[in-house]
Amino acid sequence: MPRTLRIGTIGAGWMGTAHAVALRQAVLVFGSAPAVPEFHVLCDKRTDVAAAEARRLGFARWTGDWREVVDDPAVDVVDLTTTNESHPEIALAALARGKHVWCEKPLANAAADALAMTRAAEAAGVVTLVGYNYLRNPAIAYVRELIRAGELGEITLFRGTFDIDHMADPGMAFSWRHDRALAGTGALGDTGSHVLAFALALVGDIDQVVGHLATFIPERPVASSGSGQTARARGDEPRRAVENDDVCQFLLRFRNGAMGVIETSRIATGRKLWLTFEVQGSKGSAFFTQERMSEIQLYRAADPPAERGWKTVLLHPAHPGYAAFSPIQGNALGYADLKVLEARELLCAIGEGRPADPDFRFGWKVAQAVDAVERSAKERRWVATAEV
Amino acid sequence: MPRTLRIGTIGAGWMGTAHAVALRQAVLVFGSAPAVPEFHVLCDKRTDVAAAEARRLGFARWTGDWREVVDDPAVDVVDLTTTNESHPEIALAALARGKHVWCEKPLANAAADALAMTRAAEAAGVVTLVGYNYLRNPAIAYVRELIRAGELGEITLFRGTFDIDHMADPGMAFSWRHDRALAGTGALGDTGSHVLAFALALVGDIDQVVGHLATFIPERPVASSGSGQTARARGDEPRRAVENDDVCQFLLRFRNGAMGVIETSRIATGRKLWLTFEVQGSKGSAFFTQERMSEIQLYRAADPPAERGWKTVLLHPAHPGYAAFSPIQGNALGYADLKVLEARELLCAIGEGRPADPDFRFGWKVAQAVDAVERSAKERRWVATAEV
Amino acid sequence: MPRTLRIGTIGAGWMGTAHAVALRQAVLVFGSAPAVPEFHVLCDKRTDVAAAEARRLGFARWTGDWREVVDDPAVDVVDLTTTNESHPEIALAALARGKHVWCEKPLANAAADALAMTRAAEAAGVVTLVGYNYLRNPAIAYVRELIRAGELGEITLFRGTFDIDHMADPGMAFSWRHDRALAGTGALGDTGSHVLAFALALVGDIDQVVGHLATFIPERPVASSGSGQTARARGDEPRRAVENDDVCQFLLRFRNGAMGVIETSRIATGRKLWLTFEVQGSKGSAFFTQERMSEIQLYRAADPPAERGWKTVLLHPAHPGYAAFSPIQGNALGYADLKVLEARELLCAIGEGRPADPDFRFGWKVAQAVDAVERSAKERRWVATAEV
Amino acid sequence: MPRTLRIGTIGAGWMGTAHAVALRQAVLVFGSAPAVPEFHVLCDKRTDVAAAEARRLGFARWTGDWREVVDDPAVDVVDLTTTNESHPEIALAALARGKHVWCEKPLANAAADALAMTRAAEAAGVVTLVGYNYLRNPAIAYVRELIRAGELGEITLFRGTFDIDHMADPGMAFSWRHDRALAGTGALGDTGSHVLAFALALVGDIDQVVGHLATFIPERPVASSGSGQTARARGDEPRRAVENDDVCQFLLRFRNGAMGVIETSRIATGRKLWLTFEVQGSKGSAFFTQERMSEIQLYRAADPPAERGWKTVLLHPAHPGYAAFSPIQGNALGYADLKVLEARELLCAIGEGRPADPDFRFGWKVAQAVDAVERSAKERRWVATAEV
Repeated sequence: MPRTLRIGTIGAGWMGTAHAVALRQAVLVFGSAPAVPEFHVLCDKRTDVAAAEARRLGFARWTGDWREVVDDPAVDVVDLTTTNESHPEIALAALARGKHVWCEKPLANAAADALAMTRAAEAAGVVTLVGYNYLRNPAIAYVRELIRAGELGEITLFRGTFDIDHMADPGMAFSWRHDRALAGTGALGDTGSHVLAFALALVGDIDQVVGHLATFIPERPVASSGSGQTARARGDEPRRAVENDDVCQFLLRFRNGAMGVIETSRIATGRKLWLTFEVQGSKGSAFFTQERMSEIQLYRAADPPAERGWKTVLLHPAHPGYAAFSPIQGNALGYADLKVLEARELLCAIGEGRPADPDFRFGWKVAQAVDAVERSAKERRWVATAEV
Repeated sequence: MPRTLRIGTIGAGWMGTAHAVALRQAVLVFGSAPAVPEFHVLCDKRTDVAAAEARRLGFARWTGDWREVVDDPAVDVVDLTTTNESHPEIALAALARGKHVWCEKPLANAAADALAMTRAAEAAGVVTLVGYNYLRNPAIAYVRELIRAGELGEITLFRGTFDIDHMADPGMAFSWRHDRALAGTGALGDTGSHVLAFALALVGDIDQVVGHLATFIPERPVASSGSGQTARARGDEPRRAVENDDVCQFLLRFRNGAMGVIETSRIATGRKLWLTFEVQGSKGSAFFTQERMSEIQLYRAADPPAERGWKTVLLHPAHPGYAAFSPIQGNALGYADLKVLEARELLCAIGEGRPADPDFRFGWKVAQAVDAVERSAKERRWVATAEV
Repeated sequence: MPRTLRIGTIGAGWMGTAHAVALRQAVLVFGSAPAVPEFHVLCDKRTDVAAAEARRLGFARWTGDWREVVDDPAVDVVDLTTTNESHPEIALAALARGKHVWCEKPLANAAADALAMTRAAEAAGVVTLVGYNYLRNPAIAYVRELIRAGELGEITLFRGTFDIDHMADPGMAFSWRHDRALAGTGALGDTGSHVLAFALALVGDIDQVVGHLATFIPERPVASSGSGQTARARGDEPRRAVENDDVCQFLLRFRNGAMGVIETSRIATGRKLWLTFEVQGSKGSAFFTQERMSEIQLYRAADPPAERGWKTVLLHPAHPGYAAFSPIQGNALGYADLKVLEARELLCAIGEGRPADPDFRFGWKVAQAVDAVERSAKERRWVATAEV
Repeated sequence: MPRTLRIGTIGAGWMGTAHAVALRQAVLVFGSAPAVPEFHVLCDKRTDVAAAEARRLGFARWTGDWREVVDDPAVDVVDLTTTNESHPEIALAALARGKHVWCEKPLANAAADALAMTRAAEAAGVVTLVGYNYLRNPAIAYVRELIRAGELGEITLFRGTFDIDHMADPGMAFSWRHDRALAGTGALGDTGSHVLAFALALVGDIDQVVGHLATFIPERPVASSGSGQTARARGDEPRRAVENDDVCQFLLRFRNGAMGVIETSRIATGRKLWLTFEVQGSKGSAFFTQERMSEIQLYRAADPPAERGWKTVLLHPAHPGYAAFSPIQGNALGYADLKVLEARELLCAIGEGRPADPDFRFGWKVAQAVDAVERSAKERRWVATAEV
């Protein structure tokens, strides 16, 4: 009989909803789980939203005050989907009360906060999970397995990007994402952190970085109405200065000697979800793009000369996590399915009494690299992650 | 206040489960709907399965007898996911009692049955929907819009395939899909019918066909255990003759004069979900493959000469149905999302009091073409659909 | 010391020039050859063209009368690049005088003529070569080797296309290609014959066919000036009825039991050089498109399950003929290089005293299939190639 | 009547041959030219090679001493294809005698030498051309036109790679390319310089760079026999330390504010001729890879929302230089055709009395950037090109 986990979700926006839906789907898709969610309480400071969404999503109750969630002894898991800058305070409070914590990425806007959260989590001995959902893709899980097993040989190079372009339009409104205090860095922390997650998961710890940042659209109109990722302005509104980077590129050295480049842009005309990586090793290489998330490109140097080439491998039941979705190779997964796999990891880790992947320590390593890149850009020099 | 629809689902296998999950997701993803499902009764002749799945999926009750579902005055919608040969009897019974019917494809193994079902549905004035789920893809919905608006000009050619290869292994066990009485034709009716659905939806009615069929793996081992699409045998079992086609290819003429070719195979080494179409018109062309279901290839003849080429268009909020899943272009949909869109169509059609698309009449046209191709192969001549 | 072959080229248009350039390049690229060309005489009935091109291309002399070439005892090889309908008379005359003959495709507009030419060639015991240049591609040569060696297993299916669209514009002028007497069939014989060449070379002899043809642009303006493939009209010219097919699709059965579909169109909006084939076998499959002529797609069923997929293999020195162009994998070949490889085959076959590939017998098989398809379309039935 | 240019080619290896063949083809392909080559003298210190190749390629005479070529008053053009380190001395001698110079890339191993050559060329007022042949591709020429015309808007980002892998095998023998004195830098100068050529041609002058280098295969066997790019060792030979970089990655800032990343590797497992660039602008973007050199990917932000995507554009007669090869879109060019286009540029520039593109000044800018990257890697800091 699987254990029941009472979920307290903080934040009832797009991501909060996605988490609740994903938890429910995780049980339906996989048929059974070592732990099953019970939707205990939903919190949003917009109390009308909290009430409506709680009803729609099947939460037993709602609140406007996150402290009620954290203090509720019935809550087993605090599910944190609020804006970045609020993560440390809430997560630390939850950890202090011994709750498991599922926290959206990035863990924190500053590496120091992320480190404090990591230490608190490790002291509490609970399960933590950070929302680097792209990592849960069975295609990527398979590449991780290949690398760990030495199938690609010594890894010499990592190349990654995350380019999007829905902010390439200068008429797109100023939002919290352009506000240094709320969002931290721009593309670097928002989209670039996903590439760092790939780099860390596939190649390992990062030793040093050097990078540069730029803001090509220096100010944006303040939207009179609407919000979110696609809010546009009428054209005659006041304008506000953008406070963080549109584009970031950096070089990196991994502890194991591999070289790397990461690029990210939120104004990359034409690129929609161009989250990619290429890993080159002495025995093989792999390439992935989120725009074709249900396939992976593989190259093996040991193939016979006349048949050396990149193979396009569609998702297959032998790739970790895919078999629950389809008994045959080639059925595409979608973006939402990645959250289902992430929710599944939460349920299994808690149910099986093991750490989840990626946990807060992983989230801290991402934050540390982000800080190092930012400092390197400011001081125009190579910066060691250990300096941060 | 949306109307509540009490659902009676017949068949609790993979597809029955998929329907229930899709109905639930349809409400969550779209936020609201003109009608919402209530999971009233689940039926499966394997009563233990019916009971367990009813509990897991949230049905109020279960039964082992489909007549109970059809006769239950509380049921608004009969959701039919049993094997092909059972569709006519159950659907006719449901229609006779004025139920809306959601029927998995193919509508029937014989065109005559499909026609009877269509006439009964039209006489009853209820909503019917046939499970050609691939058609619900926003990418394909967009191509249909383009064609209807004349954006591709006069359509001259349709080319479609549905190739899979998980039966290419001669060691794969005999299943109901190889049994003429249960499954009807082989690749032609099973996978080929999806291509016919594309042809009918995109180009229009089919006038004549000529085709040939072949069975390259004439007998298969009878599985000692396991079942379903991927059941394999140990190797020493008795063997049973395969009774329908592994491969089918046919030419077609549409009523509007366009030419066409359809090919389908269940032993197409290397092709996993190679459901494709290309439509060529005097002003533009489109290409699609299910293996990359979140993109469409478009060509417009009016582009400037130096920039004529095929454009890869990722799913965009301007494509019908996609905006509910993502506010930005480029987030992939998965196979399961197509069923969500199909369930959404059911809820909207009933809620809005309009026919659903594709309805039983559409399902009959597919069945008619399947019969015509089969006869053409047997008699080695062109056969008009009107002959069937 | 390589033997010198005196070349007599008949036709000084685009293709005649291409042959002369290719012969010269064949020696330079490969460094040496068992036979080397000497450019003896160039013939074109437009004597001013013949004179100018002879000077430019380095022919020793020129003439306006093809009989002079055929009758010249010094000529070793008659190189025939005139319009289709002239091939039989000239080739038979050359063969009667014991010349080797290099003939552009198609061998003849009628299978009966092609058969007469084949018999004459075999009686003369000379080398004949037909210009199915696409076949010389090292990528395709490699696939042929794979199939012959059984590496793809039993071949079950061939699928091929040759779509172009530069005649999709109804304003494009009437040319000799639209004239039944000069060109024979339209797309079927012109572009479709290349696909038939692939089918015959890769799968083997064709047993039966059934097809249909259509002319979607029934008349075209008569160009006031200009000529060739891209001549366009002003718009007020008289119009002339198009006498052959714009589009052709047909099914085929090979002698070995494999099934096939061939499609070809000269009005295929968006397709520029969409000459493709897919061959499916019990152990593997291959796909090729001329638009990416320096790569081949391969699938092998014996790959481990988690890594089954199509591999994109760039041209490699291990593919027949490529090493002369590049010592490393990945340098693209161009269209002109295919003619170089064809010229190389001519020089080697004569120098080594062996038949060339493809020879007149092969060219006849193509012509036979073309005639069978045309008859099948007219009589609306399956036609055996043996009937033609 | 076109002017005759007497060519003196120094170096009779693979590249010397390629130049001679390309010059000849340039006249044949384009039909006429403002200047035509006469193959006056071929020089190679291996006099047997010089003699044999002169005969084969049609040079009037040969020599083993490059000074004879430079001093010959009949020579109009010195064509320089010897190893990198010999370029400055020979080119300066040729320029001092007023010869036009066609020099293979890189212009020199050190920027200071390249600058001296540039100044000498400009003082002499002759035509100079550097062999960045990939730039001559009509696809790339078209992208340059688009950028110059402002069609892609303000350029914000350049991303380029040149990855090859035929040195990924540690068993591949030590060659002059691994020798600092002969080759200069490794991947950076050899393959990376081609990417720099793209960056300079497409985006403009480079202001600053920061990069890192690594040698992953620290020593290689000394080949007992064989030579060139693919020489392999038996395994028991003595080994020699590799003296330059296997991999190089660097960031760059352009004078106009655009950001950039360039990566190059000669051990990039799986990448054969992965010479790529992506240029992102405020109105559009372009992507190119040499592995598919006959196509370009284009994106235009002004496309209607529902049809925003990357278009694959095959070579078209409207792209500069292509029409001479084919009257229709879609005929692939090959690697050799790029040299033909380069030779054509030489003939036209001299015949028309205008500078060639790219000239020695361009070649110096590449060399300057190479030196700046190398210094930046050594000193671990951003280096301005003006420092070099």
